[in-house]
Amino acid sequence: MTAAADPRFLSVLRRDSESWAVHRHDPDAPLLTAFDYAATRGDGAFEAMHVVNGTANKPGRHLERMARSLHNLEIVGPPYAAWRALVDDLITQWPDDIEGVLKLVISRGQEGGPADQDPTVYGTLVPLEQLLIDQRRDGIDIITLTFGYPAEVREQAPWLLGSTKYLSYAVNMAAKREAAHRGADDVLFTSHDGEALEGPNATILWLEGDALKTTSSHTGILRGTTQEEIFSQAMRHGLRPIVTHATVAEILAADAAWMSSSTRGVAAVKTIDGQQVKQDAEKTRLLQQLSGLPLP
Amino acid sequence: MTAAADPRFLSVLRRDSESWAVHRHDPDAPLLTAFDYAATRGDGAFEAMHVVNGTANKPGRHLERMARSLHNLEIVGPPYAAWRALVDDLITQWPDDIEGVLKLVISRGQEGGPADQDPTVYGTLVPLEQLLIDQRRDGIDIITLTFGYPAEVREQAPWLLGSTKYLSYAVNMAAKREAAHRGADDVLFTSHDGEALEGPNATILWLEGDALKTTSSHTGILRGTTQEEIFSQAMRHGLRPIVTHATVAEILAADAAWMSSSTRGVAAVKTIDGQQVKQDAEKTRLLQQLSGLPLP
Repeated sequence: MTAAADPRFLSVLRRDSESWAVHRHDPDAPLLTAFDYAATRGDGAFEAMHVVNGTANKPGRHLERMARSLHNLEIVGPPYAAWRALVDDLITQWPDDIEGVLKLVISRGQEGGPADQDPTVYGTLVPLEQLLIDQRRDGIDIITLTFGYPAEVREQAPWLLGSTKYLSYAVNMAAKREAAHRGADDVLFTSHDGEALEGPNATILWLEGDALKTTSSHTGILRGTTQEEIFSQAMRHGLRPIVTHATVAEILAADAAWMSSSTRGVAAVKTIDGQQVKQDAEKTRLLQQLSGLPLP
Repeated sequence: MTAAADPRFLSVLRRDSESWAVHRHDPDAPLLTAFDYAATRGDGAFEAMHVVNGTANKPGRHLERMARSLHNLEIVGPPYAAWRALVDDLITQWPDDIEGVLKLVISRGQEGGPADQDPTVYGTLVPLEQLLIDQRRDGIDIITLTFGYPAEVREQAPWLLGSTKYLSYAVNMAAKREAAHRGADDVLFTSHDGEALEGPNATILWLEGDALKTTSSHTGILRGTTQEEIFSQAMRHGLRPIVTHATVAEILAADAAWMSSSTRGVAAVKTIDGQQVKQDAEKTRLLQQLSGLPLP
């Protein structure tokens, strides 16, 4: 929850004649019509990135994933330079010393609009919840919940929108509520056939000796931008990055486990379904450094 | 697509001091902030009902289903009387001779809002697409697509929001696009283990002798309000209503099949995946009468 005095910014991308331009908008004023596909159908995509000290963390990786999401949704978004201008406009307004969440949202446009209409595109920048900063420092207790699908289904069925960061997050939100009801901090989804998948908005990582592992996006999970960033640097720090398939039992037996996300960063997993997971404070600190976010 | 001259209305429910009241809103003016959970997470519910000649079709069934959706989503909505006032306000503005779609939308409220905030609630009334009226008259060609889940998963996993008419419809929309790409009019989702389920926004019905059958909501599908309305009257017309489990092969072998929805009404299924389905014009007309919508 954001206190009234907290900074909060909203900017919109709109096409003026031929080129896309950034327009600032009062964050408290209505922006979307009742017919926007974002609201009526969850029909669009988003990204959320971390901002501090005048810098967005790995915006390129986020915009690459946004492009993949839009491809899967068959939505033609603004060009890369326009997205970058939107990000830059928001960041320049942000105070250096506050951790912020910059969210990019795009929808298919308006129900009943012309076939060639532009998408709705905007970005918001708000303070990161203190709870998430605390979890980065303290670690998290997680539970497993089935995601319902067998692991291999979504790759064969593109209409199920695997590996797409869409606006239809009702199930992800319901899973987070289920975790809260059970006194846990987060969820690790599992496939119907027992594979570990991902969190509602986080990636699972674990350590076996010098092997740093994560789950495969062939299951339809999102490729985690923080996981990709860490994996790109892991070899230099003596870790062998491995993308694989695994059961929850394998992760419980690991030498350490983490969930990574763009805004909370790297949080050590303390327990899974009430069972202890081994801790490695040194590696936690290393992965947090590699993530590019402020250390706890 | 709606022509510019078409009627289009928007009304909002808001709590003024203690009681909920209807406020009319310019449908072209922005209504939702950039932080509304409808837009950012598809986190809310909706209903769509048919309007003609100053009357909404079976509003009670829609509001009952809305109540079940909100229960599953853990959202406290306005009281029944307020919903009815919203529906009535929209209907009084509508021209008698046009078939309209009255949509009710509710979201969890605003991201970053107080824990006890009110939900966002509104209703829209627009003309029914001519394409859907044509399909009611002409019948439809449908394809089957997997919905990914095994049939029994969602009943055991309430966070997957089975039987909940939520705003997170990106997959439903993607399935409709897949049908269009293949030259079909609609989709019949199947479970991973081969059961017939439902359409992205329609229920499947079929005839075997004097048995009128539909698929069971134990699979997590929505209970169709049109199907329920037809089933409540079927016995009087010599049909035995049966809720069951079935494969697509069983439906292909039926004496007739239909998809029912609140706005398109009852449309005869002409083909499934290119294979002919038997037609029964007399029963099509009967079911269309029972649905309460205008006959083609």
